[in-house]
Amino acid sequence: MPMDAAQWAELGQQLRVDSVRASAAAGSGHPTSSMSAADLIAVLISEHLRFDVDRPDDPNNDHVVFSKGHASPLEYAMLKAVGVIDDDELLTFRKLGSRLQGHPIPNVPLVDVATGSLGQGLPIGVGIALAAQRLDRLPYRVWVLCGDSELAEGSMWEGFEHAAFAGLDNLVAILDINRLGQSTETMHGWDLRSYSSRLGDLGWHAIEIDGHDVEAIDRAYTEAEATAGRPTAIVARTLKGRGVKAVEDQPGKHGKPLDDAEEAVAELGGERSISVPVSKPETHGSPHVFEAPGGSLPSYDVGDEVATRKAYGQALAALGGMRGDVVALDGEVSNSTYSEFFREAHPDRYFEMYIAEQQMIAAAVGMQVRGWRPFASTFAAFLSRAADFVRMAAVSRANLRLSGSHAGVSIGEDGPSQMALEDLAFFRAVYSSAVLYPCDANQAASLVERMAERDGISYMRTTRGATPVIYEAGERFEIGGTRVVRESDDDEVLLIGAGITLHEALSAADALAGDGISARVLDCYSLKPIDVEGLREAAAAAGERVVVAEDHWPEGGLGDAVLGAFADADERPRVVKLGVRHMPGSGKPDELLAEAGIDADAIASAARTLVRGGVPV
Amino acid sequence: MPMDAAQWAELGQQLRVDSVRASAAAGSGHPTSSMSAADLIAVLISEHLRFDVDRPDDPNNDHVVFSKGHASPLEYAMLKAVGVIDDDELLTFRKLGSRLQGHPIPNVPLVDVATGSLGQGLPIGVGIALAAQRLDRLPYRVWVLCGDSELAEGSMWEGFEHAAFAGLDNLVAILDINRLGQSTETMHGWDLRSYSSRLGDLGWHAIEIDGHDVEAIDRAYTEAEATAGRPTAIVARTLKGRGVKAVEDQPGKHGKPLDDAEEAVAELGGERSISVPVSKPETHGSPHVFEAPGGSLPSYDVGDEVATRKAYGQALAALGGMRGDVVALDGEVSNSTYSEFFREAHPDRYFEMYIAEQQMIAAAVGMQVRGWRPFASTFAAFLSRAADFVRMAAVSRANLRLSGSHAGVSIGEDGPSQMALEDLAFFRAVYSSAVLYPCDANQAASLVERMAERDGISYMRTTRGATPVIYEAGERFEIGGTRVVRESDDDEVLLIGAGITLHEALSAADALAGDGISARVLDCYSLKPIDVEGLREAAAAAGERVVVAEDHWPEGGLGDAVLGAFADADERPRVVKLGVRHMPGSGKPDELLAEAGIDADAIASAARTLVRGGVPV
Repeated sequence: MPMDAAQWAELGQQLRVDSVRASAAAGSGHPTSSMSAADLIAVLISEHLRFDVDRPDDPNNDHVVFSKGHASPLEYAMLKAVGVIDDDELLTFRKLGSRLQGHPIPNVPLVDVATGSLGQGLPIGVGIALAAQRLDRLPYRVWVLCGDSELAEGSMWEGFEHAAFAGLDNLVAILDINRLGQSTETMHGWDLRSYSSRLGDLGWHAIEIDGHDVEAIDRAYTEAEATAGRPTAIVARTLKGRGVKAVEDQPGKHGKPLDDAEEAVAELGGERSISVPVSKPETHGSPHVFEAPGGSLPSYDVGDEVATRKAYGQALAALGGMRGDVVALDGEVSNSTYSEFFREAHPDRYFEMYIAEQQMIAAAVGMQVRGWRPFASTFAAFLSRAADFVRMAAVSRANLRLSGSHAGVSIGEDGPSQMALEDLAFFRAVYSSAVLYPCDANQAASLVERMAERDGISYMRTTRGATPVIYEAGERFEIGGTRVVRESDDDEVLLIGAGITLHEALSAADALAGDGISARVLDCYSLKPIDVEGLREAAAAAGERVVVAEDHWPEGGLGDAVLGAFADADERPRVVKLGVRHMPGSGKPDELLAEAGIDADAIASAARTLVRGGVPV
Repeated sequence: MPMDAAQWAELGQQLRVDSVRASAAAGSGHPTSSMSAADLIAVLISEHLRFDVDRPDDPNNDHVVFSKGHASPLEYAMLKAVGVIDDDELLTFRKLGSRLQGHPIPNVPLVDVATGSLGQGLPIGVGIALAAQRLDRLPYRVWVLCGDSELAEGSMWEGFEHAAFAGLDNLVAILDINRLGQSTETMHGWDLRSYSSRLGDLGWHAIEIDGHDVEAIDRAYTEAEATAGRPTAIVARTLKGRGVKAVEDQPGKHGKPLDDAEEAVAELGGERSISVPVSKPETHGSPHVFEAPGGSLPSYDVGDEVATRKAYGQALAALGGMRGDVVALDGEVSNSTYSEFFREAHPDRYFEMYIAEQQMIAAAVGMQVRGWRPFASTFAAFLSRAADFVRMAAVSRANLRLSGSHAGVSIGEDGPSQMALEDLAFFRAVYSSAVLYPCDANQAASLVERMAERDGISYMRTTRGATPVIYEAGERFEIGGTRVVRESDDDEVLLIGAGITLHEALSAADALAGDGISARVLDCYSLKPIDVEGLREAAAAAGERVVVAEDHWPEGGLGDAVLGAFADADERPRVVKLGVRHMPGSGKPDELLAEAGIDADAIASAARTLVRGGVPV
């Protein structure tokens, strides 16, 4: 039997009470930001949400994303109301070991992703809705609760724009316009029109309501459900701290428990224990399955010159034939990253995200919520645009595969704005990450397959220019491995490279041989995890003298990763780190490698000095 | 004598011809993206720009930003037309050593900042316009040429929104709507209304024109100049590759020289040598100077407990009294970062940037163009939102001071979404950066002053919780230094910390003393530049045994920085790196430090094992 308006209002009060209680028990948290949205959530869960609480993994379930993740007290109050957690657990909020963290993480039913860095939940919701529309092909809905402070984040507008462009009528954005941010009023206060007009221009169906009028909320959700061809935004005027005079619509009440929680609970009408029987999905469809006829990875002949970015694209396209769950996204540079091979082979599973890297990563996070295996690509330099999204994806325990092309000074003429020289440092410092930097096409292809198999966040750095194929086709490369590519019994120095510098190291070894110096060369294609044993053995076999060269700033990349492998070892070689130390400009790739001091000459010179007992300056 | 329409058109053709010639000489570049905007630039420089070519640093000069930085051939063709470079230099485009790089950098008059990562020029222009309005208080104008592909970047909409909010009628955005991106058509094609309506909603004066109708362009600029109280956007329908049939409005012609440049030049009417006498500024005002009555840095008593974030804010406020050129920006968390002390003391020089970190950094870059010294702050975790802006600021050789608060697991209950655990790795890998992590309030205050004095990008990581003051007030700390905070003649192990872990290291030393182990403790507050000699001396005096602990992932932070200091040294200590290895949750700060294995117990335990000849697992 459906609930009536009075019951919805009661439920709203319960959600407020429980938000206040949870925050009081924790001694911290964001009750006032929860109270503004309580009525919006009350009506949602009692009338409109379709979710089988007993089967949280049912692919037909709706999804709810709290883009305003700091309203976690409300989210947990909601979980209690729908029977996912009990009252005892509610009061463990923010305590060590509790599932109910300060900001949501996907460790309980109904929570798909971590939020708490504002501006991310909506674009992630776009990704889930895209998965529903184009991958699963199921009619489930995605409801995203957004704050108004986060509407200042450009990423929200990337999401709004893409959702309209894709016609995502399965997406409902609920905008909780309580006007008050953390330290000041938002730019637009309660000017609902300032939001709804922009959304309307983009192609959204925007509905302005009083966010505490439960019947208006119900009508708006009903209208959203009936709206075809475009997403709906419910722009709701609300009061922060609604229902408790001491905090309602008051500045300075953000992010702290109420001074007198007991009194507040009394003012809200006391504790309640309404249990909401959430409606189950009306449909019982199975997710669409893409045909995967099989096939094999591309192979390349030793000695040919092939760019690893091209091998990435060709391997990804091949993988799409081998696995139906692989999907690809690109930031409007698919003809540079070569994800265009995948787009051409599997257009139904390719997503053009335009030049909106934050939305691209967010969409990938959304798709992996539903079990798809997204590979997202752009220039490595421009992945930095989405650094916070990658960081949060790790908090979400998301499984993402990322490829950044055009890394380093070796791109040449385009200049430093297009050269990733910090990507390895960034991705090494991402929780759960693997960081891969292949030097040839066969290695790149093999590693693309490993990335698909691996959980967590995998990053592959690819090279713009063609490099010689040095490995036989079909050789299998593991994440966490190395390869000794040149060795003898009397090696005096170890040259370590990856990607473009591996080839420079090989040339350096040739030059050193001419001087009578025997150099071992190690391909350290997996910067993280790094092959500690392989590195230690190779260094030991080469006189504990190491030169490591990278097309990257000297900080945080290959050199630092190599040093880490020896930090607490019994034998700690002398290591000379070669990296890019001055801001490069435009020039030919070879000129820039030489100018940066990371080419074969520089490596050979450093090795010579090291073997002769000195330290290169 | 003013030019007439026919002359404007001729000048537009010259700019096209020179774009084609420069790209042909380089063998790469983006001539077609230049050709679409040539008429827009022709009318701008011949009629509306106010710039004294002989006095490029005149504070009354207008500013021109190519947000679509890949239209660099057009920018250099413009520089030739106005007499900043000659034709010989034009043809050095993209060659090693040339000032005319693949994408603009601020090494020639009229180019203030680097662009080439799309979506940045407009928000930087907002910063320059804010400087004009609120800092310099001069009537110069900022003209920003934007591409349409970059309008998919959320950062552009952060900029558009802030400009309207601030009423920047000195800002003109010129939108070159040529409809074609790199690999596909934009989402909105030639639907000018899709842009102008959104801009109008935000409060811009938006004018739709044919971007090849020079008289319409002139009228639009005149209208922009006459518009008070709000910024103007000129939404111009253009043809990519305009004027050359082989490429005009053709897909697949992005980012490459024309196949037959000679024929194209002929089709465009041949080479011209029109020289444009750019009008000088009509005003000769002096930039506003803020009073700086002097004062001194705050001081704290040894033994008191003060959060370094609070010392940051108080020191910044004091610095504002000592230097009139210091300004502050915050991402709507000024009561967390404590930039609120500056806001209260110097409201005229404080900029509330709301939750739009990209715009915040871009505004700071814009302000430093005019010689102001911006300090920008937010939670350290959320600075990652602007990672690409920081990267590009380094390419711009910008002088920025950044502070990130609430770093590491020691923030406690808010959980991992709010914990920066990768900021040190990121900022170490920024060109020109200094990376500082003070452990006490007096140190933080001293380093804030050092940051103001330093060029390049300086980053200070601050701590949420209060920590004991251990240094005397007035002690001067240098960037690049260390401090030995505990030592004896028979030290057996060196404990290295910074920020929160320095205090844990001190406690560990106390515990070790109880076991009869004498530990030296080093405060490595400057991660970059790092004090190589200080580290080597301290390790040598402590048995070449080192434990380094950081509230950060193990990759790229303090531990890696320390290892780098010993990489090629004669004596390379055994180093045990302690960092956060598992994703933290919510909990009390002490609980989380313990769980992460970076508290005093963990440090002491590692040190004990090391001294006893083992290696901690």
